[in-house]
Amino acid sequence: MKLYELAPTPSARRVSIFLAEKGIVIPRVNVDIRSGENLNPEFKAKSINGRIPLLELDDGNYLCESVAICRYLEEIHPSETSLFGNNPLERAKVEMWQRIIELQGLMVGFQAFRNLTGIYKDRENCIEAWGAESRQRVIDFLPTLDQQLAQSSYVAGDNFTIADITAYVFISFIKNLDILVDDSLPHIQAWFATMAQRPAIVSLNPKN
Amino acid sequence: MKLYELAPTPSARRVSIFLAEKGIVIPRVNVDIRSGENLNPEFKAKSINGRIPLLELDDGNYLCESVAICRYLEEIHPSETSLFGNNPLERAKVEMWQRIIELQGLMVGFQAFRNLTGIYKDRENCIEAWGAESRQRVIDFLPTLDQQLAQSSYVAGDNFTIADITAYVFISFIKNLDILVDDSLPHIQAWFATMAQRPAIVSLNPKN
Repeated sequence: MKLYELAPTPSARRVSIFLAEKGIVIPRVNVDIRSGENLNPEFKAKSINGRIPLLELDDGNYLCESVAICRYLEEIHPSETSLFGNNPLERAKVEMWQRIIELQGLMVGFQAFRNLTGIYKDRENCIEAWGAESRQRVIDFLPTLDQQLAQSSYVAGDNFTIADITAYVFISFIKNLDILVDDSLPHIQAWFATMAQRPAIVSLNPKN
Repeated sequence: MKLYELAPTPSARRVSIFLAEKGIVIPRVNVDIRSGENLNPEFKAKSINGRIPLLELDDGNYLCESVAICRYLEEIHPSETSLFGNNPLERAKVEMWQRIIELQGLMVGFQAFRNLTGIYKDRENCIEAWGAESRQRVIDFLPTLDQQLAQSSYVAGDNFTIADITAYVFISFIKNLDILVDDSLPHIQAWFATMAQRPAIVSLNPKN
């Protein structure tokens, strides 16, 4: 098994934190997407959508999409407590929060960043006004997450799950948009401080 | 159990087709999102993100997000063949394709439609240039799906799964963007014709 990634990107970090939480070690291959290494025919033959992270299986199958990769690894390395939830209702709540944070948070943040900075303008049209609108939507979404974290210790309930990983990567990412989690969002602040102390996350963050 | 929805919307149709495929009947409540009925405090107390579809459980729990609702219903009504896949690799491929079609297809199509038509301009800022860019990205994505359907009978492999439901709703939706699945996309055409004949889908489409 082999994981193609660019370690500092948010999508790669989602998988890296998941692996560290589960204690799974997989050989990694760095793909420099910023220089367009993912656009060459060799990589495109492996990755359906030309994106990272990409998991190469020993039987020659390839999986893209970070959540699909994590779900597969959870199933082949089951733990006593699953990061996807432990019964139908828990699993549904993990899926619900995972999607809410992705679709109203993380993906919106990506669109803000890409359209405002033009980081990939060599390969996509950027619409600055959409970047600004997306940034505002991220700000408008944060109280929904704060409210949830006022009611439960973790994003999807009483247990740490993949939804916390997604939310942690999202909240870490928005500093790139100059969005501050200030005192108006006390529950995100408290939860984020707890997250940052988890050994899996400490092991990935540069010490300084 | 009770399902809050607006039947003709794409997200409600995803759940409706899923229910029809599984033969599950649940009482429905219509919520007129176009007039903003989902924005009133009564509905917002039930739905975390103020959106439909929303599943009310008998114990007072609520689930939003169509895929979370479907996953829950699959688990409490297990069939011999799961619409989410039958082993770790199948389940990962369903998740992968489901996400590729959502994130590069359906959601992009929604952004095109909302920003071009201004259908919800009473409650969101619309950026027409982003609508046009999104429409183009939908067109650019279609060959990826066509190529996959050249290799397998269904979107995620040899079996009909929830990824086919998502793709069917996506391909049905893009006619609203004046995007035609023409002869340059023969595998989508053939697959779509097969989908349209499934009893679950026939039962939901208006006869004319």
